[in-house]
Amino acid sequence: MKNKVFYGEGIKVVKEQRPDVYEIIAKLNDTVYSGKVLDYKTLKLVAIAIVAAKCDEKATEKQMKSGMKELGITKEEIMDVLGIVLLTSGVPAYVKAMKILEKL
Amino acid sequence: MKNKVFYGEGIKVVKEQRPDVYEIIAKLNDTVYSGKVLDYKTLKLVAIAIVAAKCDEKATEKQMKSGMKELGITKEEIMDVLGIVLLTSGVPAYVKAMKILEKL
Amino acid sequence: MKNKVFYGEGIKVVKEQRPDVYEIIAKLNDTVYSGKVLDYKTLKLVAIAIVAAKCDEKATEKQMKSGMKELGITKEEIMDVLGIVLLTSGVPAYVKAMKILEKL
Amino acid sequence: MKNKVFYGEGIKVVKEQRPDVYEIIAKLNDTVYSGKVLDYKTLKLVAIAIVAAKCDEKATEKQMKSGMKELGITKEEIMDVLGIVLLTSGVPAYVKAMKILEKL
Amino acid sequence: MKNKVFYGEGIKVVKEQRPDVYEIIAKLNDTVYSGKVLDYKTLKLVAIAIVAAKCDEKATEKQMKSGMKELGITKEEIMDVLGIVLLTSGVPAYVKAMKILEKL
Amino acid sequence: MKNKVFYGEGIKVVKEQRPDVYEIIAKLNDTVYSGKVLDYKTLKLVAIAIVAAKCDEKATEKQMKSGMKELGITKEEIMDVLGIVLLTSGVPAYVKAMKILEKL
Repeated sequence: MKNKVFYGEGIKVVKEQRPDVYEIIAKLNDTVYSGKVLDYKTLKLVAIAIVAAKCDEKATEKQMKSGMKELGITKEEIMDVLGIVLLTSGVPAYVKAMKILEKL
Repeated sequence: MKNKVFYGEGIKVVKEQRPDVYEIIAKLNDTVYSGKVLDYKTLKLVAIAIVAAKCDEKATEKQMKSGMKELGITKEEIMDVLGIVLLTSGVPAYVKAMKILEKL
Repeated sequence: MKNKVFYGEGIKVVKEQRPDVYEIIAKLNDTVYSGKVLDYKTLKLVAIAIVAAKCDEKATEKQMKSGMKELGITKEEIMDVLGIVLLTSGVPAYVKAMKILEKL
Repeated sequence: MKNKVFYGEGIKVVKEQRPDVYEIIAKLNDTVYSGKVLDYKTLKLVAIAIVAAKCDEKATEKQMKSGMKELGITKEEIMDVLGIVLLTSGVPAYVKAMKILEKL
Repeated sequence: MKNKVFYGEGIKVVKEQRPDVYEIIAKLNDTVYSGKVLDYKTLKLVAIAIVAAKCDEKATEKQMKSGMKELGITKEEIMDVLGIVLLTSGVPAYVKAMKILEKL
Repeated sequence: MKNKVFYGEGIKVVKEQRPDVYEIIAKLNDTVYSGKVLDYKTLKLVAIAIVAAKCDEKATEKQMKSGMKELGITKEEIMDVLGIVLLTSGVPAYVKAMKILEKL
């Protein structure tokens, strides 16, 4: 499954406790990250933006880490994406995500 | 200001009623859509994803329209992006956005 | 797929445009609604509560309709569930959902 | 009950269907709007801001109407409050609320 | 008041600082958890689902604990309910809640 | 910039990494907190309410602290405002915010 770092410890619990659900998530994950026209990196940037816009700090950190490590996404690229978070979701979500990024 | 279609009628009200705030929004808008490293189109796709993930139907429609008209974003590209909405935000947000897209 | 009424028109678009994603949603839907220990009706009540708590009016209406039609869920049962929406999510979400229910 | 306009039709349904819940909502409503130190008008402005920040368009419209009619809140005052919505919740929530206000 | 574990320390603050509001919350809590037709356990499962769908981790943990301790709700039952969270609210909310549950 | 305490460490990152975005946020911040008709304190109370309603605990704490320190907002005033959070957003958001306030 792509995006392993993101789901980390939690996904192991799912795999153990609900293998049938795990299988579906894994398939969904691989399907949506295999865009018909867009590449994995663009889609990962979209994922980072969505979780940052929702102020989900843990998921934001994991998605950023996973994007940087797995796909070579740069901090500059993430900062560009966070600009859209600022525009659509306000200052607190933006400042939070910028602080998370700084520490990576 | 880039992204004019998106704000449509509402932004006119802001311009008229609060020109000082309008100036700041226009500047913010232009700044964040002028990414340091990412192009306008990628950032627009991010914006579509965020508003779709929040189930904001009107903003989703406007962002999609504006992206298709101004930047030549294709339905295929938007569908790819919506896959990430499905993964991060669930079935209702995804189905809603797919239906909006279909009608454009 | 269980829950057909709920997804209605939008799911048809998905089936047509992204059959691979549709297959996964259908499987996920059937899997989660086939609880290991809880029955379909209880799980449907949970779904109604979640969408009502999110103030997603269209999904709330569709879920209520589908629950009443497919599973014989009563208005009394839905009202009980909406009490928890009031407690956890406030008066506007509750009043909105009660109004939607009244019209069904 | 204070704030009658806001709950409008929906609250009648609650009164009819669940009089016990209605009594509690009415008491909660009167209690929280009778601030120990802040006046009703300030609290109403807070309510307008919260529903606008959540992008709940119907509630935003009703709260604005009720505040203007019952308490003589001016459009200027609401616009000031919406500035905080812009700051904390982003451009789409702000533009939407400004457009709703314009039409009142 | 039912559901004591859930509100824990915070509710004590309310009781001390705003006894009038506390009384209303206590009454609301007891009223909505005393469903006309559904039992306490079903309503508690609904509450767990709503807070998990909102990604409110602390409330999710408290609700799960309280449901297991007070009402004998099993982990299997909670996992069934979380399936609906996955469907309606996406993978991050689901994985987070599964991880919280695992540690209880 | 007004409201310095609120943005704290995160805003320094923005200033350093994206000085152009920082300038816009600073200007937006000063503009919206300089209401045409409402005073800074009322607008600050609105900001506290919005972040509390969104269950954003860190922002809630920072906003409360900043309001108490910079503007002499009292705990009584904040508690009044949180009553509206209870009404519009439910018990968990309210109890959480009351607990944060107690510890300041």
